[in-house]
Amino acid sequence: MSIGLPQRETNPELPSRVTIYEVGPRDGLQNEKAVVPAAVKAEFIRRLAAAGLETIETTSFVPPAWVPQLADAREVLADLGDLGRGPRRPVLVPNERGLDDALEAGVGAVAIFGSATETFARKNLNRTVAESLDMFAPVVARAKDAGLWVRAYVSMCFGDPWEGPVPIGQVADVAQRLMDLGADQLSLGDTIGTGTTGHVSRLLDALDARGIGTDQIGVHFHDTYGQALANTMTALRHGVTVVDSSTGGLGGCPYAKSATGNLATEDLVWALDGAGVQTGVDLAALVETSVWMAGHLGRPSPSGVVRALAGG
Amino acid sequence: MSIGLPQRETNPELPSRVTIYEVGPRDGLQNEKAVVPAAVKAEFIRRLAAAGLETIETTSFVPPAWVPQLADAREVLADLGDLGRGPRRPVLVPNERGLDDALEAGVGAVAIFGSATETFARKNLNRTVAESLDMFAPVVARAKDAGLWVRAYVSMCFGDPWEGPVPIGQVADVAQRLMDLGADQLSLGDTIGTGTTGHVSRLLDALDARGIGTDQIGVHFHDTYGQALANTMTALRHGVTVVDSSTGGLGGCPYAKSATGNLATEDLVWALDGAGVQTGVDLAALVETSVWMAGHLGRPSPSGVVRALAGG
Repeated sequence: MSIGLPQRETNPELPSRVTIYEVGPRDGLQNEKAVVPAAVKAEFIRRLAAAGLETIETTSFVPPAWVPQLADAREVLADLGDLGRGPRRPVLVPNERGLDDALEAGVGAVAIFGSATETFARKNLNRTVAESLDMFAPVVARAKDAGLWVRAYVSMCFGDPWEGPVPIGQVADVAQRLMDLGADQLSLGDTIGTGTTGHVSRLLDALDARGIGTDQIGVHFHDTYGQALANTMTALRHGVTVVDSSTGGLGGCPYAKSATGNLATEDLVWALDGAGVQTGVDLAALVETSVWMAGHLGRPSPSGVVRALAGG
Repeated sequence: MSIGLPQRETNPELPSRVTIYEVGPRDGLQNEKAVVPAAVKAEFIRRLAAAGLETIETTSFVPPAWVPQLADAREVLADLGDLGRGPRRPVLVPNERGLDDALEAGVGAVAIFGSATETFARKNLNRTVAESLDMFAPVVARAKDAGLWVRAYVSMCFGDPWEGPVPIGQVADVAQRLMDLGADQLSLGDTIGTGTTGHVSRLLDALDARGIGTDQIGVHFHDTYGQALANTMTALRHGVTVVDSSTGGLGGCPYAKSATGNLATEDLVWALDGAGVQTGVDLAALVETSVWMAGHLGRPSPSGVVRALAGG
């Protein structure tokens, strides 16, 4: 006996509509042990779109040696055709080479992946933070010239497994420099899931003080320490309207062993449906998609909503 | 590589201090399949107290046929001695017979367990809501006469697996009648974990309108749909300062098949430590206790913090 939809009780502190930026096919599958065939990935994205997710990061043009799980980016996009193109189907590109591949595939949006800390920049990009910004500058410039929408991730915004605490001013510096390059949107990443609510408020305030408003910001929380939804709701109360999440709670971070998956899209949709916030998502269709994908991955979804509704 | 404590960034919206009402030994163990020996239960409670938890619901004087997991209440309390007595060691009592047993055992506090819905009252207490209040009246009166502190749980406040939505006015009616009996504190239970943030605010507002302020209220969220911490933080922003949680996320609800465990105390402490809210709890000692108890239960803890810190 389970309840399929939450009791609707409006929360006037929240925006009336939230855009879910679905990262399951990219951030999710990139960090799963099982390598999923390109045709399954394309079908996953089709199902996500059919369930009402309007913005979906589809894949990544990184060297296959770095991320073998997404080595089939071309195939996935070819399979998707027009459904994989346009400004609401970003692909991750680490550098100009990746941008070339993305442009060749005909995408309409790209995302770059910066770091708030030196250690993670070194481990993830083999560069200092400053060097990585130099690398991103022509990527953003050329993408904008080509008419693409550009998102800039900032990872390790709320803590770094090697460095520990990350000063808010340091995060704001990196964020500002990425926006100065010409990015359209920031995504503030709690890559290892250690952030808490006051931290979220303070970082948003610090960015606001630098002229980066909540209309330019998405939030990206991992649920490693069980904090993802509470932090997300805090950001929404501050006026953020873009939230990254992963259907079924897929994914994690291969560079931080302790990290488990992203905030599950289903748990987010439950929270927003209950609070009367529009997302456009059909929760039942999404849960069905997670169950289908769990079959391909050979493990149950960690999402509470998926487990409750699918009896997993 | 994991971070043992969150980065401290004060959240001024929250109370400066929160009382954690630990329900692991009662609500948690009551709903675990494994039956834990009395000596292990007593040791669990001693470890929780040593980790800084000041309020611990120790056990339940219900008929053993109803809850065989807690049939050893006398033994546990005898083992604990003075550590199991006083106003911050409540035991659950369903009726006058349970109160007699509790008084004989020398406890200093009791909790009764009401229902916001007729269906759950029937299934849990074999009575209508009105009949259950009649049953509780002499329990509360006699407990107060004996100088005990009395808590009143209200279950199914945010949804009922058989009835679906539960009107807020109906919950407030039951809550008010329990307080009118003379209870010192209410605990608002999201027994099946379906509640969302706007719902929490509205229920607290409805109780406030009836003169039941946040100083008389504890909140009790189950994490079945991943909403427990977000809902708890909402209640804290409203001024609630008592939160029920279960070390390691033990427990659930045997009457609602879909329900998994309570909010994990560790995940709550992480959220509060990070936000600069005092709890008095030593997180590392608590995680160690959860790992120890997981060994006795034969299953890993579902708590994110426990998994992250203990590498489970």
